[in-house]
Amino acid sequence: MVKLRMEDSKIWKTCISAMSNLIEEALFKLTPDGIKMKAMDPSHVALVDFELPAAAFADYEVKRAVSLGMNLAEMNKIMARAKAEDEFFMELDEEKNRLSLTFKGTSTRKFSLSLIDLSESELPEPKLQFTASTDIVAGVVQDGLKDAEIVGDNVKCELTDEGFFMLTESDTGTTELKLHKGDPGLLKLNVKQPARAMFNISYLINMTKAASSTDNITINMGTNLPIQLDFPIAEGKGKLRFLLAPRIEAE
Amino acid sequence: MVKLRMEDSKIWKTCISAMSNLIEEALFKLTPDGIKMKAMDPSHVALVDFELPAAAFADYEVKRAVSLGMNLAEMNKIMARAKAEDEFFMELDEEKNRLSLTFKGTSTRKFSLSLIDLSESELPEPKLQFTASTDIVAGVVQDGLKDAEIVGDNVKCELTDEGFFMLTESDTGTTELKLHKGDPGLLKLNVKQPARAMFNISYLINMTKAASSTDNITINMGTNLPIQLDFPIAEGKGKLRFLLAPRIEAE
Amino acid sequence: MVKLRMEDSKIWKTCISAMSNLIEEALFKLTPDGIKMKAMDPSHVALVDFELPAAAFADYEVKRAVSLGMNLAEMNKIMARAKAEDEFFMELDEEKNRLSLTFKGTSTRKFSLSLIDLSESELPEPKLQFTASTDIVAGVVQDGLKDAEIVGDNVKCELTDEGFFMLTESDTGTTELKLHKGDPGLLKLNVKQPARAMFNISYLINMTKAASSTDNITINMGTNLPIQLDFPIAEGKGKLRFLLAPRIEAE
Repeated sequence: MVKLRMEDSKIWKTCISAMSNLIEEALFKLTPDGIKMKAMDPSHVALVDFELPAAAFADYEVKRAVSLGMNLAEMNKIMARAKAEDEFFMELDEEKNRLSLTFKGTSTRKFSLSLIDLSESELPEPKLQFTASTDIVAGVVQDGLKDAEIVGDNVKCELTDEGFFMLTESDTGTTELKLHKGDPGLLKLNVKQPARAMFNISYLINMTKAASSTDNITINMGTNLPIQLDFPIAEGKGKLRFLLAPRIEAE
Repeated sequence: MVKLRMEDSKIWKTCISAMSNLIEEALFKLTPDGIKMKAMDPSHVALVDFELPAAAFADYEVKRAVSLGMNLAEMNKIMARAKAEDEFFMELDEEKNRLSLTFKGTSTRKFSLSLIDLSESELPEPKLQFTASTDIVAGVVQDGLKDAEIVGDNVKCELTDEGFFMLTESDTGTTELKLHKGDPGLLKLNVKQPARAMFNISYLINMTKAASSTDNITINMGTNLPIQLDFPIAEGKGKLRFLLAPRIEAE
Repeated sequence: MVKLRMEDSKIWKTCISAMSNLIEEALFKLTPDGIKMKAMDPSHVALVDFELPAAAFADYEVKRAVSLGMNLAEMNKIMARAKAEDEFFMELDEEKNRLSLTFKGTSTRKFSLSLIDLSESELPEPKLQFTASTDIVAGVVQDGLKDAEIVGDNVKCELTDEGFFMLTESDTGTTELKLHKGDPGLLKLNVKQPARAMFNISYLINMTKAASSTDNITINMGTNLPIQLDFPIAEGKGKLRFLLAPRIEAE
């Protein structure tokens, strides 16, 4: 039996929306402790790591572990129909092999989503030796990425003792974001060794959609390592992490 | 002679906009008592029945009955240029066979619309034995239709002693709207016999655009009969009614 | 050396945006006194005449005259990324042949734009004997043009002792804007001889985008002469002038 209730749908809606930008189908694992999902995007460049513990729900009833395969685009369409003030329910209809999603507000609106067969895929468990980390106001990174997008496809990111830097170059011009230690947008800076790598801008834009502009993002980097982005969800109770593989700099 | 004046253009703008979603050309009949228009959409699935009495106008001068054929899409483009505070005039230019529409505000903006030849078409006068009716807050129905749209093309509507229900099904999932007796969105319920029929969602979405979300819609239904939607216009002085033929349920 | 600073980017952003609707590439001439640019659109129907004196800048350092060729569409993309509260800097990087544009706010965002080789083009210096001029609230003209757009491609403009008039005709209908002497939208009227000419609506719409709806536009006209539009920039310190050639009326 699976029966979940949340005071509102905001957390689930935000997470599904961010994840659906990267991956199409996902296998959610529900246990009495909470929900977990880990998946790679079709081109195996990005990894999504998502956890929402039972404590993030108003009611959480999952008697035994169950894995539910879902089309994230379809679920996202449903969640987009939620209203801010609606109470939100999810329930498993094992007989019909569907997940029902109910929004209770002025009226009761019930959606059901056909579950799909997904085999558990072997995921890489990268052991990454990050050498630098920082907490940044999401809006600053989001702006820097939109700046970069008008010039090129890839952005060089750098974390040093001096701060966080983003650089894009193309024939028409360049863009550069500088966020120095002490700037209000840079909340924490922890650099054992300066880190520098290049990433695809579209992927980063999709990933950072998980945050509203005033949220913080925790970034972990190492030179030519994947970048790790952590988003605060459910007041710190949950985990929404994206890993993105670096591009090779042609220099 | 035809000379009409309204304090503002809101009523005319809303009605034209709603009707232009369904029908392309329409023959408006103007008499000293008011304006009437009745037309079917090109595929003969929907019927529009519109009446605006002389009393809905600030000035209304129509000396003898006259029928004016108009392209509703063209008139809608003109009405879309009206500003909320503009005084609104319509006048017939018989010589040029045009209807002039004037908006008076900061400046005077005058549009003219070429009239078109339309022969009076024989319209079905369906005698429908509705068995159930209800008054519903428009926003609830509009939301339910937008929900349904993400899943399918047709929606099953049901009016019973318990309330108003909408159900859509497809391979990817289902949506369901439940509005029970006593729910704030359900203002009146009058059921002699439960009624149930299936309708095209796009048509219903276009029809319900005639209402703002806080308006009431009066719905009349009978099992496998057309659905009749009445919208309040000109504080009850006018009539804007849509009839939509049911789809046959393949079961 | 070229080093410019403005308290904010509003003036530069507005002018670039308006000019980029008409011309693709432009040669800006910077002298110790200020910036000038004059160019015709690719079809040689419209002329842009732009001046921003040193006094319009918070800091203005231009040691010797220099001409900088720029792609206006590219610069417009960059200026669109400016935030209202950002301090704005432009600097010439002679070595890399680039202009850098920097926005300083929560973070420091630096863009650079590759300069392009443009030869100075011979521009016509039309001596126009305008016979009528007027100051009009921009919003009135902008509305009249949007009205006209739904009916046709060209608009007849008229300046007489009675006021300013715009008329468009096509098979589907007509639109007419009347702005009479004394109307609040007509601020000044100076008519030696009534003037009348026909212009392309799209060009006028693009030109009038240079003004916000509450700005004034100064219009100069003569019968079958180009129309001259002047926009107030930098509190009267700068000049943004558009000239548009008339269309021949086929009557």
